[in-house]
Amino acid sequence: MNIFKGIIAYPITPFDREEKIDLPLFKTLLERLVQSGANGIAPLGSTGVLPYLNDAEKEAVTEAALQQVNKRLPVLVGVSCLTTERTLYHAKFAEKAGAAAVMVIPASYWKLTDEEIFRHYEKIAAGISIPIMAYNNPATGGIDMSPALLKRLLQIPNVTMIKESTGDVQRMHYLRRELGDDVEFFNGSNPLALAAFAAGAKGWCTAAPNLIPDLNNQLYAAITRNKLDTARTLFYRQQELLQFISGKGLPRTIQAGLQIQGIESGYLRSPLQPLGTEDDGRLRDILAALGN
Amino acid sequence: MNIFKGIIAYPITPFDREEKIDLPLFKTLLERLVQSGANGIAPLGSTGVLPYLNDAEKEAVTEAALQQVNKRLPVLVGVSCLTTERTLYHAKFAEKAGAAAVMVIPASYWKLTDEEIFRHYEKIAAGISIPIMAYNNPATGGIDMSPALLKRLLQIPNVTMIKESTGDVQRMHYLRRELGDDVEFFNGSNPLALAAFAAGAKGWCTAAPNLIPDLNNQLYAAITRNKLDTARTLFYRQQELLQFISGKGLPRTIQAGLQIQGIESGYLRSPLQPLGTEDDGRLRDILAALGN
Amino acid sequence: MNIFKGIIAYPITPFDREEKIDLPLFKTLLERLVQSGANGIAPLGSTGVLPYLNDAEKEAVTEAALQQVNKRLPVLVGVSCLTTERTLYHAKFAEKAGAAAVMVIPASYWKLTDEEIFRHYEKIAAGISIPIMAYNNPATGGIDMSPALLKRLLQIPNVTMIKESTGDVQRMHYLRRELGDDVEFFNGSNPLALAAFAAGAKGWCTAAPNLIPDLNNQLYAAITRNKLDTARTLFYRQQELLQFISGKGLPRTIQAGLQIQGIESGYLRSPLQPLGTEDDGRLRDILAALGN
Amino acid sequence: MNIFKGIIAYPITPFDREEKIDLPLFKTLLERLVQSGANGIAPLGSTGVLPYLNDAEKEAVTEAALQQVNKRLPVLVGVSCLTTERTLYHAKFAEKAGAAAVMVIPASYWKLTDEEIFRHYEKIAAGISIPIMAYNNPATGGIDMSPALLKRLLQIPNVTMIKESTGDVQRMHYLRRELGDDVEFFNGSNPLALAAFAAGAKGWCTAAPNLIPDLNNQLYAAITRNKLDTARTLFYRQQELLQFISGKGLPRTIQAGLQIQGIESGYLRSPLQPLGTEDDGRLRDILAALGN
Repeated sequence: MNIFKGIIAYPITPFDREEKIDLPLFKTLLERLVQSGANGIAPLGSTGVLPYLNDAEKEAVTEAALQQVNKRLPVLVGVSCLTTERTLYHAKFAEKAGAAAVMVIPASYWKLTDEEIFRHYEKIAAGISIPIMAYNNPATGGIDMSPALLKRLLQIPNVTMIKESTGDVQRMHYLRRELGDDVEFFNGSNPLALAAFAAGAKGWCTAAPNLIPDLNNQLYAAITRNKLDTARTLFYRQQELLQFISGKGLPRTIQAGLQIQGIESGYLRSPLQPLGTEDDGRLRDILAALGN
Repeated sequence: MNIFKGIIAYPITPFDREEKIDLPLFKTLLERLVQSGANGIAPLGSTGVLPYLNDAEKEAVTEAALQQVNKRLPVLVGVSCLTTERTLYHAKFAEKAGAAAVMVIPASYWKLTDEEIFRHYEKIAAGISIPIMAYNNPATGGIDMSPALLKRLLQIPNVTMIKESTGDVQRMHYLRRELGDDVEFFNGSNPLALAAFAAGAKGWCTAAPNLIPDLNNQLYAAITRNKLDTARTLFYRQQELLQFISGKGLPRTIQAGLQIQGIESGYLRSPLQPLGTEDDGRLRDILAALGN
Repeated sequence: MNIFKGIIAYPITPFDREEKIDLPLFKTLLERLVQSGANGIAPLGSTGVLPYLNDAEKEAVTEAALQQVNKRLPVLVGVSCLTTERTLYHAKFAEKAGAAAVMVIPASYWKLTDEEIFRHYEKIAAGISIPIMAYNNPATGGIDMSPALLKRLLQIPNVTMIKESTGDVQRMHYLRRELGDDVEFFNGSNPLALAAFAAGAKGWCTAAPNLIPDLNNQLYAAITRNKLDTARTLFYRQQELLQFISGKGLPRTIQAGLQIQGIESGYLRSPLQPLGTEDDGRLRDILAALGN
Repeated sequence: MNIFKGIIAYPITPFDREEKIDLPLFKTLLERLVQSGANGIAPLGSTGVLPYLNDAEKEAVTEAALQQVNKRLPVLVGVSCLTTERTLYHAKFAEKAGAAAVMVIPASYWKLTDEEIFRHYEKIAAGISIPIMAYNNPATGGIDMSPALLKRLLQIPNVTMIKESTGDVQRMHYLRRELGDDVEFFNGSNPLALAAFAAGAKGWCTAAPNLIPDLNNQLYAAITRNKLDTARTLFYRQQELLQFISGKGLPRTIQAGLQIQGIESGYLRSPLQPLGTEDDGRLRDILAALGN
């Protein structure tokens, strides 16, 4: 009944030296994620630098992702834009291309009122038939949707999932208490993985499977088997990496981490720049300690 | 020697019912500002909802603004985009169209490092000959540039001006103390107008002249004449309005305020929605108390 | 080897109508906690309004507590004062009276440097032989000790335990990762009970056993039996109460909750006032829903 | 009609090597302030480490201060305690000793509701005949009184003055707009001195006259003579020192600054420790640059 659960893996969007999207490389990296054991794939997320792409690029990545995954796993496509009109446009495009659901963060310049946010979701939801995951991430999107507003968004028929990335487990407690055991909330804060699963999160939206898929999958497996001790041990093994990639920014750290592991990962688009030497060294140490 | 000083007026970008830009109305509203006594004009600012426009729209508004102002006043054009490449593109366009300077906020999704921000400004500055005003507004742009970083940006030859919109007067004290009396910092926080002028701000970047140009101009005149008492009295007359338009969002409040004063101001682009009834009533009261 | 683990119960300090401490009532309420199944007792905590008592009162409560518990459970006595001298004085008094350990929060008026805090703990530790629990609670104490400082405090021989009350589970992750599985960190944030136990907290410092001891004890039991599902269910049963007592202040809510349950709980000392009618009604509803 | 205006100078409370109050030294330092040209004297403020003293010490300092000032200037005595009862006690003591007014900050451990704060002030006000200055300083006291609450406190007959130390000039704008030109608000944030006077503050509560009385007095004189340019120049001369003493803590920096200037200033009471070597050196440089 739930489309998504467990590990939902986020690919980066790699660029070439001229900062053009490298679609063949994107497909290669996506294929790694599909084969890593993830339960879902989410292109054009924050990790996939959605807001830095133009319309044509978003369409190309959407199509490439769905083509490559080829129904082996459900695909969640990020479609957020600043205007309602453009968000709806890309939501429709993703639906047509075969996405299982779309993810929408109320990307902001001006702070939006709750009413504006509700209408934004309502209009997008009315234009498509697939489910919407409402995504709260004030650190990137600039708007903090309260748990009460998120609860209200779930009244819109095809807004069926919440992705909470504030890192505040109390938001999850609120949703679960107010909406019952079946509420589909997902965790988007890597360092909160253990606490969120303990709180009943249905899944973990994460770029970490680009680097440490086995540890991510094993943590989820321990949770589903109700083994708290095992889950705790597994979590602490990966905790430093999760903290690092969250703290230093996912596009930069995943790109660097892949390279450290000998996997081609392309270039970033300016103003984003590669990790500096010191951070790169630290990431190298963390990965080495994990045997990667 | 300084291009900008005093009151730098920010027009809204009006839309029609279908949420397309209404260029003729834009020119009409711009003409009001030019004739209001402002010392400069700044299209495509936050008030002008720059981030909600596509490339073609930004170009059309830039050209319309420069054509309409027709060298009567210096024009400062907002050109910020998430990517360095697009920002540079629009900066070049503005220069060619006749802008006196461009304004650049490091619009963000991912938090940028100081190094990334510096390189962003450096690349843009290298591609144009006109001055850049570095614009700090974490509440909208999502990135907070420290006073130390702003000081560093002023080392780039054509980054010559700072617009500080945090509302924290201590940032201005820092810049003035570190860089001397001649440092060109501008205030972008309406409720800080008096404190910023007291601190030595060269000008006030504001949308208020759309509604109360005389009060704005008189405040600046009192400051230039060194009359603190008069400035204080004038400031407190307009303080409630300044607080209101900042608190409720400039595009919404300026659009509503113009309408209240019987001036056609078009529509907003979604997700932005008109002021609600209660706020509209309060704005009506504030303007009425000012005799508007 | 560990003195404290599991549920460490915090009594209130009840007053009479004239706002004098009601010691007989204090002992009665303490006895309820001892018999509730708690694993430890902590008089003169935040719940016990330590900072609102004078020296003689602190001594009287310390003696009354140790006399009443009479070695049936380990007793943790709060001894924090603003000055180092007074804190040491009360620490010595508690040791002499038979406390198993003392709890010290760096109560603050002026923000203290890390060096000042370290020396404060060092001097107190040097003057007593029993262990110290370093208590971090910026919301009440006004100083936020970083995880790195807490780690450093554990270098002082008899600073052996950390009580973390920020409600930020990442602080616990840091301590556990840096100091290993044996690090004795305790959770002092009621709404974080589940996440903290999941993260490996040795115990839960809480006033909740005054009202719902069985739910508290069962949650800890589920954790020790490694039953995450059961723990989650038990946590969500009590979550609303935990949120409420934290949000509205422990002295007020425990005093009111006891009264609602028909248990005499005395009066508060001004400026603290009883819960207002609305909050009292909400607490009544929450307790009723729990069958209390 | 107003008792206080202009520069209200705050003495430190000096201790001897054994951390006992050095009353003779206190009187000597107080005398310097009286002769420095200040408009009022405020013992037992934050600078005077009020919360670190016991009852007898507070009384001794109060009497010593009033005796030494001997009606040459109005004296404002800090009397805040955590409990209402103790605050009232010391307020009465100060009145009897000859204080012109008392200063009350709602010193907190548990966050107080607005109702609790209002009743606290009401009870204290009812017990004395002299005016009360309500003091808002969340950074030290732990409670942030909103401008609306401060406005409400002014309804209590002998709560006649507000001391605002948040450093947020908008709070002052609110008070002035809501309560008119005559509202007696004082600034307690040193780095805000210029902005607060520009906003209409009646006075500046400051420890700076211990170190740079002439610059402080001249700034106030420029304001009263309506000379904004002169005020700005004088402010920027002292701005770095004001920032430094606020940032590093008034008791530490004033004690060190006096010593640097060759004036005996005693010792601090633990946990407060002297400025470290690096900060001491920086303070030396700042004072030297001012010719001190």
